[in-house]
Amino acid sequence: MEVKVMKNILGENDRIAAENRAMFQEKKVYVLNLMGSPGAGKTSVLEKTMEYLKDKVHMAVIEGDLFTSKDAERIEKHGVPVIQINTAGGCHLDAPMVQQTAKDLDLDGLDLLIVENVGNLVCPADFPIGADDSAVVLSITEGEDKPMKYPLIFKESSIVLLNKVDLVPYCNFSLANAEEDIDTLNPGVKIVEVSCTKNQGIEDWCGWLLQKVAEKKGAQA
Amino acid sequence: MEVKVMKNILGENDRIAAENRAMFQEKKVYVLNLMGSPGAGKTSVLEKTMEYLKDKVHMAVIEGDLFTSKDAERIEKHGVPVIQINTAGGCHLDAPMVQQTAKDLDLDGLDLLIVENVGNLVCPADFPIGADDSAVVLSITEGEDKPMKYPLIFKESSIVLLNKVDLVPYCNFSLANAEEDIDTLNPGVKIVEVSCTKNQGIEDWCGWLLQKVAEKKGAQA
Repeated sequence: MEVKVMKNILGENDRIAAENRAMFQEKKVYVLNLMGSPGAGKTSVLEKTMEYLKDKVHMAVIEGDLFTSKDAERIEKHGVPVIQINTAGGCHLDAPMVQQTAKDLDLDGLDLLIVENVGNLVCPADFPIGADDSAVVLSITEGEDKPMKYPLIFKESSIVLLNKVDLVPYCNFSLANAEEDIDTLNPGVKIVEVSCTKNQGIEDWCGWLLQKVAEKKGAQA
Repeated sequence: MEVKVMKNILGENDRIAAENRAMFQEKKVYVLNLMGSPGAGKTSVLEKTMEYLKDKVHMAVIEGDLFTSKDAERIEKHGVPVIQINTAGGCHLDAPMVQQTAKDLDLDGLDLLIVENVGNLVCPADFPIGADDSAVVLSITEGEDKPMKYPLIFKESSIVLLNKVDLVPYCNFSLANAEEDIDTLNPGVKIVEVSCTKNQGIEDWCGWLLQKVAEKKGAQA
């Protein structure tokens, strides 16, 4: 009985995620679902991304948090349209939330929409929102054992950002081991070593995003 | 309909949490629910705690992870009884899991049981397991905005460990601001600044635990 109800809920989410995907396809907006633990550095990566991309593409951001609009305030300073979703305690964004929010954006004028999910390495991976791709940000301060302990989110992502690599000298973290584990879970997945404070890896990451946006624009609606 | 089902599930968890609480009360075992984000340093804190306490009290550990027994292997090296729970993708431990697992421990010979929950700053706070107290570990590398963004877990905890304070010089983190926010959410809550690599704060934290164990032993069964 419980399983059936859960399946119904997930079925409903998947149905609306498919609607979202069709809507973004029609508008040729490339949508990225940005996930990671609390404090992995998702918003900092976004800030660097906006600095690099905002004059190259028309972008917007949806911010997901349980409470507060702290992240949206950080995004807004960069002059990029942003809408904050508060889940009021909910541990992930779902497809209906994104659908409702996307209606308030001018999709016709957009190339790129980044959805920063709630800080959580588990639940967001279970709820598709209708994005083209998922990305996971892992801070090296979280420890190199995390990919194997939280495999689903690494398996589902098309790109993995290993963030805060400037702190490697002060932490017990082997980039080689972590990257090997990630490649075992998701063979060939793109991995970028990033430091927002040192501006490292941003060009590589943003180049990947620009390529994805160009492919979407070029695709038949 | 969905809400009703959710209520039933939560009601069932609360009922079994109450059974667990009664069981631990009868056996005079002090039980702590140790929570925090992935990579906050829960297992490292536990390792330091065992070094400090294992000759002073009879303790055991329950390890919660989605997959792998990496954490249990780390605990086992310290000669403390440990049982690993794998949630197979589940984002939190629940009271039935803890009940079933506790049956495999010699509760008559125990003073202290620490349950390391799944790495997640959201969901574990919604599912009581029947512990005497909750503790939350926040790594300063996660950022000082986290208490206000994830308030429930800070409100519910009887002690907050600000971990990895040795990295403060390399991070944009104000201990004063974070502690003020935590105190706003949970006035008077005990806050300990911890560094496992520098052995900082361990004596204070373990002293708090010993006091709690002594109170439980002294309490009428």
